[in-house]
Amino acid sequence: MSDLTKEQIEEINSQRSKVEGTKRVVSNGLEEIIYQSLPVLDHGFIRVIDYMGDDSSIVQAARVSYGKGTKHVSADKGLINYLMRHRHSTPFEMCEIKYHVKLPIFVARQWIRHRTASVNEYSARYSVLDKEYYIPEPQNLASQSSSNKQGRGSVLEGDDAKRVLDLLIEDSEKVYEDYEKMLEGESQIGLSRELARMNLSLNYYTQWYWKIDLHNLLHFLSLRADSHAQFEIRAYADVMLQTVKKWVPLTFEAFENYRIGGAYLNSKSINVIKKIIKGEKVTQNNSGLSSREWEELSNLIDLSK
Amino acid sequence: MSDLTKEQIEEINSQRSKVEGTKRVVSNGLEEIIYQSLPVLDHGFIRVIDYMGDDSSIVQAARVSYGKGTKHVSADKGLINYLMRHRHSTPFEMCEIKYHVKLPIFVARQWIRHRTASVNEYSARYSVLDKEYYIPEPQNLASQSSSNKQGRGSVLEGDDAKRVLDLLIEDSEKVYEDYEKMLEGESQIGLSRELARMNLSLNYYTQWYWKIDLHNLLHFLSLRADSHAQFEIRAYADVMLQTVKKWVPLTFEAFENYRIGGAYLNSKSINVIKKIIKGEKVTQNNSGLSSREWEELSNLIDLSK
Amino acid sequence: MSDLTKEQIEEINSQRSKVEGTKRVVSNGLEEIIYQSLPVLDHGFIRVIDYMGDDSSIVQAARVSYGKGTKHVSADKGLINYLMRHRHSTPFEMCEIKYHVKLPIFVARQWIRHRTASVNEYSARYSVLDKEYYIPEPQNLASQSSSNKQGRGSVLEGDDAKRVLDLLIEDSEKVYEDYEKMLEGESQIGLSRELARMNLSLNYYTQWYWKIDLHNLLHFLSLRADSHAQFEIRAYADVMLQTVKKWVPLTFEAFENYRIGGAYLNSKSINVIKKIIKGEKVTQNNSGLSSREWEELSNLIDLSK
Amino acid sequence: MSDLTKEQIEEINSQRSKVEGTKRVVSNGLEEIIYQSLPVLDHGFIRVIDYMGDDSSIVQAARVSYGKGTKHVSADKGLINYLMRHRHSTPFEMCEIKYHVKLPIFVARQWIRHRTASVNEYSARYSVLDKEYYIPEPQNLASQSSSNKQGRGSVLEGDDAKRVLDLLIEDSEKVYEDYEKMLEGESQIGLSRELARMNLSLNYYTQWYWKIDLHNLLHFLSLRADSHAQFEIRAYADVMLQTVKKWVPLTFEAFENYRIGGAYLNSKSINVIKKIIKGEKVTQNNSGLSSREWEELSNLIDLSK
Repeated sequence: MSDLTKEQIEEINSQRSKVEGTKRVVSNGLEEIIYQSLPVLDHGFIRVIDYMGDDSSIVQAARVSYGKGTKHVSADKGLINYLMRHRHSTPFEMCEIKYHVKLPIFVARQWIRHRTASVNEYSARYSVLDKEYYIPEPQNLASQSSSNKQGRGSVLEGDDAKRVLDLLIEDSEKVYEDYEKMLEGESQIGLSRELARMNLSLNYYTQWYWKIDLHNLLHFLSLRADSHAQFEIRAYADVMLQTVKKWVPLTFEAFENYRIGGAYLNSKSINVIKKIIKGEKVTQNNSGLSSREWEELSNLIDLSK
Repeated sequence: MSDLTKEQIEEINSQRSKVEGTKRVVSNGLEEIIYQSLPVLDHGFIRVIDYMGDDSSIVQAARVSYGKGTKHVSADKGLINYLMRHRHSTPFEMCEIKYHVKLPIFVARQWIRHRTASVNEYSARYSVLDKEYYIPEPQNLASQSSSNKQGRGSVLEGDDAKRVLDLLIEDSEKVYEDYEKMLEGESQIGLSRELARMNLSLNYYTQWYWKIDLHNLLHFLSLRADSHAQFEIRAYADVMLQTVKKWVPLTFEAFENYRIGGAYLNSKSINVIKKIIKGEKVTQNNSGLSSREWEELSNLIDLSK
Repeated sequence: MSDLTKEQIEEINSQRSKVEGTKRVVSNGLEEIIYQSLPVLDHGFIRVIDYMGDDSSIVQAARVSYGKGTKHVSADKGLINYLMRHRHSTPFEMCEIKYHVKLPIFVARQWIRHRTASVNEYSARYSVLDKEYYIPEPQNLASQSSSNKQGRGSVLEGDDAKRVLDLLIEDSEKVYEDYEKMLEGESQIGLSRELARMNLSLNYYTQWYWKIDLHNLLHFLSLRADSHAQFEIRAYADVMLQTVKKWVPLTFEAFENYRIGGAYLNSKSINVIKKIIKGEKVTQNNSGLSSREWEELSNLIDLSK
Repeated sequence: MSDLTKEQIEEINSQRSKVEGTKRVVSNGLEEIIYQSLPVLDHGFIRVIDYMGDDSSIVQAARVSYGKGTKHVSADKGLINYLMRHRHSTPFEMCEIKYHVKLPIFVARQWIRHRTASVNEYSARYSVLDKEYYIPEPQNLASQSSSNKQGRGSVLEGDDAKRVLDLLIEDSEKVYEDYEKMLEGESQIGLSRELARMNLSLNYYTQWYWKIDLHNLLHFLSLRADSHAQFEIRAYADVMLQTVKKWVPLTFEAFENYRIGGAYLNSKSINVIKKIIKGEKVTQNNSGLSSREWEELSNLIDLSK
């Protein structure tokens, strides 16, 4: 938050201080943090800018009702659990949220692959980018995993870590310095912004407005708040999960229950479990599972016993 | 509105009477009519259920700004006009609206072809449909156009009109009567609802929650509030246009200005206009336009002069 | 197929008899049946009209390679299994298929809810619909389920069945007879087609071209070839599954393995299984599961044992 | 093309030399260039990998016909012109094309904003990026426009140009050198690829498979083959336009006629034209147009006369 200018902080405070009356559904949890800059990584943030609907809107749409939700929270909760369990998607599409996000370009490149959102990005054709780049914390300077071709291994230490940080900072400084030189020009004639920006590196920060419905947001979060996601995008997803918890607490609980700690079992794996429960002796050889599938099932339910 | 039950009216009034505080952007125009049933055709309606954002949200997103819109309405207006004129779409995606709509099934079938919205429809697998069907007003009983294979010609009169109305009513009554018979069954064992519904005709009413962003709504309205659209869906589009006017007045004005009443001219037509203005004599023969194109251009700018 | 006119059969045969050379990837399995009318229900059909890619295209895209797939089928198969198991979607989007489908309108209404496809439907504004309506086979005349509000129960028998069939046929005949009367008009001035069509019932057949990528097709089929889907749409999904098998056999096998017959377990259910395997006594009461969840888990792995 | 390795060229040639029989529609124009690397910028390319349909497929879908297109090319052409003129979109969605594209990351960032395509990008989490970066030709080293905040002005000359090129090359070399250092590590423990890549600058090349239907491709090209688009993405769009011309010549001609050289006129501008043709004296003051609108209309049809 320290990166915000005084003017930006004033704009945010001015919005936060103004309360108006509305007949719409209001999420008190989200009203608490709306417009606030929730810090992520070294210079990034997540800000909730606007939202539509709450838990009751999901129930209302599922029932195509004239009024709001059901009369009782317990009935709303039961229905939301049912919808989540059976992967009904359209009622969750009836809630919408809009974020202002500041994020490194390499994170933005992963993020934008989710196509079911609306985006307005800060234009580096139109404006000059600020000098803000991402440098990982030392504890996040992971080495290449030896087992997983796209994963991280142990943390770099000592000189290895220092050397990487020095290189990242040195190059980030240099590319920005030269970006500025190109923009200015020796003789007052600068290179166009749309060209000069190509000299910046992928750890430079950009920002955008990003708007998405709750169903697609949960899909995004199930992939990006996951242990297989790159640490940097997960840092954003984790903060967003907290905003979902404040916004639609019943949906958040159902999501955690059914989508986060859960797992999909194929028919062969279900058969293996049935046999074990019946007391049959099952090994990988007679299971019909590949060694990879057997390993994944073992990790899930401890077949060693 | 007379079709609403007492309980439905009470639910609507209960929602309309409750005002809560919000830090979000509020559209006072839309707050006036939120939840109200705006009648369309003989038994249908449009109800605004929720919305996100207003004109200032479009400006805010286009600028990726920390605060709300610009300081001055005139600057907002200029930017919105610019965005509309140059067909920028993403800033308009930043506003969202949700409707509850009751509409004949044949209208619903046209409507659903717009894929960029979220829909929850009343389920006739799960519930019994009400006995409500659409019968056109006599002045809308158009004959088949003789010139346009998918259009309407003159209005049916006298016996022709009476006969059509009699047939429509007679069959609508009969298919519902038999729908009920199938559901009940002679011996207490009724046909499943998911099967019985197939006996109903396409003028029966269904209803749904429909949520869409402003950009895609304007695209829908530019097609459906158009003179080439079927009268029945246009009746809905016209009412929705009025809700857009209340919601985002600057955007509505820009839309009327740039998208309604305008036309797309191809390069050959532009050349014809240039020549005419220069004082050259242009006929279809020397215009380079096909007779169809010439006719369309004549209709637009009156070439006969 | 007996519903096709002689002219239609000739057009199909003419297309089937023409073979041209292409440098594109060819699916020999699909070439066998391309353009053929595969019958569904009493008057419907599925016809494969065109396709793009095969199993090797998925591998090629996943690797962003310059050539085609890998060198070895076993490597292709392993990668496709991996992508399916881990729910990677984009490589499967790289294959595309186009169908011509004839189907009852009430089935078309469920089908069109899948928004990620392209559709061109036969226009009843422009043309007169044929007199073809769906009447279920007696063994598919299910009663309303007493336990599941949107499901089917036992099959109607004897008089109950006969009575339903008689009503369906009687009303289908009547609405079409009156549709024709309206179109013709007493005095040569007929009602416009776009209005007259509203008199037809939802069991009348329509047809469309429908084009979708393989990822979204598999999603469609996982929902519509499922036991919870209505019998009539499932009849179409089952035929389409066979076309997928001919088109992309490796993907079909992976899909069957990982997506059909599988189930999603939440974290609480996984814990219950772990405990049972460890030899602990688990009942619904001490399971942490709701009675509904307990029942669903029991159905899956037979907890009674 | 000189950037392709010998192995890549062999793979391409191997695919191009293999011809198989198909009953599908074949575009002979596209078969000529399929798989070929069409060079763009200094190291990029466009390769057509696969396609579905041709001009006749659009006609076939618009008519929902059993056979292929109409009997006569002139009828096909007339219908395609009609569909294009009236902005019918769904028939054009029935054709699909897949490209393999190599492009600078800053171009990829603009490109990906089009959400209606399928993408598989080369993963820099999984693999090491090649040392290939974009350096503009001197004649494309434009200065910032003084009138248009996101455009280009005159070309840099002499020392200004040389200095920019020197900086771009120097920094591109340095960030890659340090990227490699990070990956290797001093003591054999390298930084993970997913982190090291952030040191690369936005002019580095990436590549992807990109698949899109013809309607959305034409929309993409109408924006990106336009004079307002950045030169570098336009270079790609121009090459793709040539592939469209080879693929669907009738559609290409209609597109050029109606979408490239054409213009949208709003209702006020149409009124101005009507008045001028009637012989009235119209100036900006009495036109009802803003000075900006007047200027745009003047540029289009030369109002000075």
